[in-house]
Amino acid sequence: MSTSRFAQLPPPPYYAVIFSSQRTPGERGYNEMAERMAALAAQQPGFLGIESTRDDEGFGITVAYFDSEENIARWKANAEHRTAQALGRSTWYEHFELRVAKVERAHAMTPR
Amino acid sequence: MSTSRFAQLPPPPYYAVIFSSQRTPGERGYNEMAERMAALAAQQPGFLGIESTRDDEGFGITVAYFDSEENIARWKANAEHRTAQALGRSTWYEHFELRVAKVERAHAMTPR
Repeated sequence: MSTSRFAQLPPPPYYAVIFSSQRTPGERGYNEMAERMAALAAQQPGFLGIESTRDDEGFGITVAYFDSEENIARWKANAEHRTAQALGRSTWYEHFELRVAKVERAHAMTPR
Repeated sequence: MSTSRFAQLPPPPYYAVIFSSQRTPGERGYNEMAERMAALAAQQPGFLGIESTRDDEGFGITVAYFDSEENIARWKANAEHRTAQALGRSTWYEHFELRVAKVERAHAMTPR
């Protein structure tokens, strides 16, 4: 049983940044930057965890969890992250949606 | 440019059900039920939209959007959905996390 891809989070409340995206065709340096951004996010104040997946059609959902809206704003303003955001708009994404939400309830299950 | 996999939502606030899951190996009737549940969810009162993806390691994230917590509770209690939930626990998922969140801000971009 593998749970390594699940975020290990404290009890709610906390905040979720829900990022859904459609990649452009081609790799274009995306994977390296995605790994770098995940590592950088994990170093940010208030970062709680991240879950991310993308299918073979290039449609992905990443949910990053933070302790507060203030720390989400700090992460958004991070200089290296801003460079990645610009490349996302110019190169990597055909379309994306970004939603910020306050998690109020959480429930986990490992059936076996 | 394909945006058909993105939920078309009203302005916030609304609610998100964030479901991350690790599939068991094998198909086991999952795909048919997943399609049926997506269609059934779309008929529920207060359903706003859904985004879903799963990678080739079987790790998936689905986010379903509703207008209220009351309508999320109704969907959870739907009889056919409850049958699917039981099969999820017994058969389809190694582990899952379910989080209910209130979306407070949203932003979309189509770069080109």
